[in-house]
Amino acid sequence: MAKKIILTGDRPTGPLHLGHYVGSLRTRVELQSQYKQFVIIADVQALTDNAEKPQLVRDNVLEVALDYLAVGIDPQVTTIFIQSLIPQLAELTMFFMNLVTVARLQLNPTVKDEIKQRGFGTSIPAGFLCYPVSQAADILSFKADLVPVGADQIPMIEQTVEIARRFNRSYNCSVFTEPQGLIASVPRLPGVDGKGKMSKSAGNAISLCDSADTVRDAVKKMYTDPKHLLISDPGTVEGNPVFCYLDTFDPDKQALDVMKEHYRRGGLGDTVVKSRLLEVLLSILDPIRARRHEFAKDPGEVMRILKDGTAAAREVAATTIQEVRGSMGINYFPN
Amino acid sequence: MAKKIILTGDRPTGPLHLGHYVGSLRTRVELQSQYKQFVIIADVQALTDNAEKPQLVRDNVLEVALDYLAVGIDPQVTTIFIQSLIPQLAELTMFFMNLVTVARLQLNPTVKDEIKQRGFGTSIPAGFLCYPVSQAADILSFKADLVPVGADQIPMIEQTVEIARRFNRSYNCSVFTEPQGLIASVPRLPGVDGKGKMSKSAGNAISLCDSADTVRDAVKKMYTDPKHLLISDPGTVEGNPVFCYLDTFDPDKQALDVMKEHYRRGGLGDTVVKSRLLEVLLSILDPIRARRHEFAKDPGEVMRILKDGTAAAREVAATTIQEVRGSMGINYFPN
Repeated sequence: MAKKIILTGDRPTGPLHLGHYVGSLRTRVELQSQYKQFVIIADVQALTDNAEKPQLVRDNVLEVALDYLAVGIDPQVTTIFIQSLIPQLAELTMFFMNLVTVARLQLNPTVKDEIKQRGFGTSIPAGFLCYPVSQAADILSFKADLVPVGADQIPMIEQTVEIARRFNRSYNCSVFTEPQGLIASVPRLPGVDGKGKMSKSAGNAISLCDSADTVRDAVKKMYTDPKHLLISDPGTVEGNPVFCYLDTFDPDKQALDVMKEHYRRGGLGDTVVKSRLLEVLLSILDPIRARRHEFAKDPGEVMRILKDGTAAAREVAATTIQEVRGSMGINYFPN
Repeated sequence: MAKKIILTGDRPTGPLHLGHYVGSLRTRVELQSQYKQFVIIADVQALTDNAEKPQLVRDNVLEVALDYLAVGIDPQVTTIFIQSLIPQLAELTMFFMNLVTVARLQLNPTVKDEIKQRGFGTSIPAGFLCYPVSQAADILSFKADLVPVGADQIPMIEQTVEIARRFNRSYNCSVFTEPQGLIASVPRLPGVDGKGKMSKSAGNAISLCDSADTVRDAVKKMYTDPKHLLISDPGTVEGNPVFCYLDTFDPDKQALDVMKEHYRRGGLGDTVVKSRLLEVLLSILDPIRARRHEFAKDPGEVMRILKDGTAAAREVAATTIQEVRGSMGINYFPN
């Protein structure tokens, strides 16, 4: 039986961080042998709210690729590609845009939230409002069975399923399979300031490429229980960012339970807990950073990997767009 | 000095008619040696409000091409091409969509009118709202200096100029020249029913491919002055569709003036005026129909002409999109 297909990826707008690591990168490494996995570096999508900053997007294509390779995404089994170099995705987006109403896009909860977050006011770029259509084109071009998402992105999958159904129904065909969301089991990692989720733009992230010193510094400044003033005071574990991180990353759950108990009854200082967290984080980040450093020595080789992945992805997308034209009856020159 | 560039074209949604002939086709034939002229068969745009009817669009690609050849558009000097076969147009549309706000598109007077006409209600396809962006991509891909338009389409040129400026400013470049509208000097041809402009969908058109009998029939039924009941009655020339057509098509302006005078004072029957109109129309339509008939004998040859034109157009669009990527700094693999 053919392997099931996964499509996943990132907007190249900044270095990937621990939130990405637990939320998606780690899973990609785990799944890559079991599935046929496509990882899109979504630069066209990144431009929908960074039209004035193409250099940011351009620079981060390489950075994101380095992060992928550093965490262990293997280009021998996973196809990593650059969105803007696959014209078929733009073509499919154009066809799909006729199958979605403006009103439907305006009701998409994910996009509504993001529009609010970005403070576009009444100046919403048309490309931003329509990016779910472009995302549907990405997913459906590769006929993905599964799309790993956070809970807040489920509406994007629903929108994609609607488009797939509408296309198949309108053109009386079965070109597209309906993808399913693979919902992340890990809760969102909070930022080091304990406010909301970890994000580069909020300045509360630990990036995968951060030096050991930077990580040490970030852990030192990390928020804990604000009422835990003296070592002897009882402390709260729930919602305490340091313990959230330990819950997520510490492999020794038994020792962690002992530590939590001690913290709760008092007598355990933040410094000790943070020291354990630093140890845990560095045990993960040191090898990633070391591999990243190796790959970064030869950016030409990394770009070659992206070029090869993009060529492979383009072939798949080209086959799909031919099927699309065929179903619509607009393949004027089939040969 | 290099020839100035013209971009013009049609949505392939039905056969072209006399309104197209006076409004644009005749001008294209006149201008084609003086300018470098690109004529787009805009099938992607036609799908924005015909998503459920791709067959209509597909069939009319050939019909429109036959009309072009029949009126004398010469593929040796004019590049005729099919929009959907030029992926660079879709790619450029995607980049442009980030430079236009949804609010701006919603304020475009041409699109507002068309949305009303089509009775979309609240179900406006996203592709339809955004088609001015796609049209801007068409115009700017070919770096058109001039775009022949009716007065009602001036807002489309303004939108295109805005996008060109915004692109050049955002990416600190001068990739795009600002096109100018070449506004048709001929007033809109009314329908044979005297209601609004001639249009296929209103069922009040004389198509270029109509047989002599069909034309005769249409002229016979044509609206005139409703108060001109008896031949001896004085008649009104202004707003009388038959005289509008004669004004537009009759080459003998002197004889026409005499006829108008006679009609005004009474004593000239509609039959006589219509008989002159039929003679004038057939002198234009007979040779067009004959040439159309010749070309229609070999549809394969017509498709070959479109294939060649599309290949030539694709080269131009490919050069432009490379410049676009270069200006945005996202040409990852310049060679």
